[in-house]
Amino acid sequence: MKIESVDFFYLSMPEILDIGDGSQDAALVRVRAGGWEGWGECEAAPLPTIAAYVCPMSHSACKPVKASVEGMNLNEPGDIEKISRKVHENSFDLLQADHTLSGIDIALWDLLGKYLNEPVYKLLGYKKAYSKIPYASQLFGDTPEQTYQKALQSKQSGYRAVKFGWGPIGRGTAAMDEAHFKAAREGLGSDRYLMIDIGTCWVEDVTAARERLKVLKEINAYWLEEPFANMALDAYSQLAKSEPRVPLAAGEGCNNFVQAAAMISHAGLQFVQIDTGRVGGITAAKRVADLAAKKGVTYVNHTFTSHLALSASLQPYVGLKEDIICEYPVEPKQLALDITTGHIALNKSGEVAVPEKPGLGVDINVKALKPYLVETDIFIKGKRVYSTPDL
Amino acid sequence: MKIESVDFFYLSMPEILDIGDGSQDAALVRVRAGGWEGWGECEAAPLPTIAAYVCPMSHSACKPVKASVEGMNLNEPGDIEKISRKVHENSFDLLQADHTLSGIDIALWDLLGKYLNEPVYKLLGYKKAYSKIPYASQLFGDTPEQTYQKALQSKQSGYRAVKFGWGPIGRGTAAMDEAHFKAAREGLGSDRYLMIDIGTCWVEDVTAARERLKVLKEINAYWLEEPFANMALDAYSQLAKSEPRVPLAAGEGCNNFVQAAAMISHAGLQFVQIDTGRVGGITAAKRVADLAAKKGVTYVNHTFTSHLALSASLQPYVGLKEDIICEYPVEPKQLALDITTGHIALNKSGEVAVPEKPGLGVDINVKALKPYLVETDIFIKGKRVYSTPDL
Repeated sequence: MKIESVDFFYLSMPEILDIGDGSQDAALVRVRAGGWEGWGECEAAPLPTIAAYVCPMSHSACKPVKASVEGMNLNEPGDIEKISRKVHENSFDLLQADHTLSGIDIALWDLLGKYLNEPVYKLLGYKKAYSKIPYASQLFGDTPEQTYQKALQSKQSGYRAVKFGWGPIGRGTAAMDEAHFKAAREGLGSDRYLMIDIGTCWVEDVTAARERLKVLKEINAYWLEEPFANMALDAYSQLAKSEPRVPLAAGEGCNNFVQAAAMISHAGLQFVQIDTGRVGGITAAKRVADLAAKKGVTYVNHTFTSHLALSASLQPYVGLKEDIICEYPVEPKQLALDITTGHIALNKSGEVAVPEKPGLGVDINVKALKPYLVETDIFIKGKRVYSTPDL
Repeated sequence: MKIESVDFFYLSMPEILDIGDGSQDAALVRVRAGGWEGWGECEAAPLPTIAAYVCPMSHSACKPVKASVEGMNLNEPGDIEKISRKVHENSFDLLQADHTLSGIDIALWDLLGKYLNEPVYKLLGYKKAYSKIPYASQLFGDTPEQTYQKALQSKQSGYRAVKFGWGPIGRGTAAMDEAHFKAAREGLGSDRYLMIDIGTCWVEDVTAARERLKVLKEINAYWLEEPFANMALDAYSQLAKSEPRVPLAAGEGCNNFVQAAAMISHAGLQFVQIDTGRVGGITAAKRVADLAAKKGVTYVNHTFTSHLALSASLQPYVGLKEDIICEYPVEPKQLALDITTGHIALNKSGEVAVPEKPGLGVDINVKALKPYLVETDIFIKGKRVYSTPDL
């Protein structure tokens, strides 16, 4: 088959709130080849992501992503890897290219899985998919009381693991953060996994992070996530060696394999978190999973949006039996829910299993998405280079 | 003063060739505040860079760059650092943001220098600017004979240092590369500095790089530049330890301080090359220069475009006496030459000195740029969010 078309759709909730919730809009990708269709999602700002697909060439290493995709062969997994390499070769000076590639790569795997009648994880070389313990991923409340209520609710919903992140954390005093951390543990009870996500608030400030280690240890935090900016290797490795020891998790900001490899090798992480919608897709994510397994670092997906993104983010490590935890978005916006017709529900053990269906095993709810379409047009020298395609 | 306006201009040669020449188009930035004007240049794909400035917010950490710039105070250097931090805080999930910020940050320093009547390097804390030995930066010829002729010409032009890069290198056999390397040295003679730039062709392939070390040593390469993808720390550090030892240079692909810091700490580099138009501007570049000096790694600018970019790329390290080499574009396209009215010529010693004038010390040739303007329009839901501003 040859790749016949790649279409980007900018979708959005009617209103975007200034909160740490990445499910408020979406950059959806549809790829067609040989009568088949695959879907992917970039976890990225839609307009720059589309621009990186259609922009004019700047020079030989700054080409639009389009130049490395359309018309390419698609018959086997090696063809997708070839496209991934070609995008890097042709567009490594186009910063946004990795985010654009991510959704395309996911759609290519989905399409190929359907064509070859196999779930993506099997095409990746895994024999079996292991179900994962989902952690409910949610934002801290505005007050410790709200955080407590949210934790209590998560506990009552039966989640064995819960992550709190963003919101007011890291923006005020250590005492304020402490109150939220303790409220989360109190609401959750002592027998659940509790993860804390700082959302990079401390940037490179190791001292601020160290001030919170004691309470994080006290509440038995399963991990401390993204205390610093992505790739701030020195800050991470200093914190990793600080007492009391709290396991570190990070990596969602990596936009390619080599960055994730750098985090695995030099940041002192115990968990590497990969967003398939940012790292360059399933191809890059699988390489990270292989390396993490080799280096004894636990792989975890980063997913805060749709169940298309969820399936795509699980496939790269679903065959790793030891890596038991997965992120599971519990309070996504309606848009994210509406992207697929069905959803990846928890099984009887309260765990998450990827669909045992060809491709990513989720169906796109095309009809439901129309109201979310953000009509977008880009003109260069009066010529239309992008216009929202028909859904 | 308050920042009143930030305008992006997409400029391009009439035809863009599929060669490794980044001077074929430009993303120029004009900032206005308090009756003053500053100019900057992003070394980046113009359309995605503009899109990252004007796109709608996706969530609290994925805002358009615009949200952190317009209306902000601009009275002293600390204000620019504040804007830089704000962009990272508000846009760290928007990959292209660093490239967009780069040109803005440069324009802010230019404006502030004019307002405070000081060259930028003085605002950065340097007492004195040291002139640098320029290396002529050019592409390999298509054949070894062409490379030889180019080298001969560079020698006759009086350059003490010459870098060859890109073109056919790394795309064929080791023997073909060897012929080019030797032709470059032969044309140049034995008494000039010769640098070799692979343009990341070997991606992560340490074996390919090792195969060329012997001849690189033979031709006395001053450095081997970008054998691998930016941030491929493992590949770099393995090569750095390989015999025969050839000094490594890299870093131009870093789009923020922490990435450059990672390269300095973990890649085994002897030279770190920073493009002010990509790394987040002069603010981030100065931090890299400080760290490099502390760690005994030599800082070198990466500049392949205009003399606006050249001045901006020199300011962050022009006060470091020991770091004697600078990149000097010798064959830029006419567009790059037309961006400024004057040019930073070599002084009597054949060296490059930054202009001892307020700001970046170069004047924009506004009139000359009009024919290069690429009229661009972006509409979201029928509303124009970007249109080429008046020059």
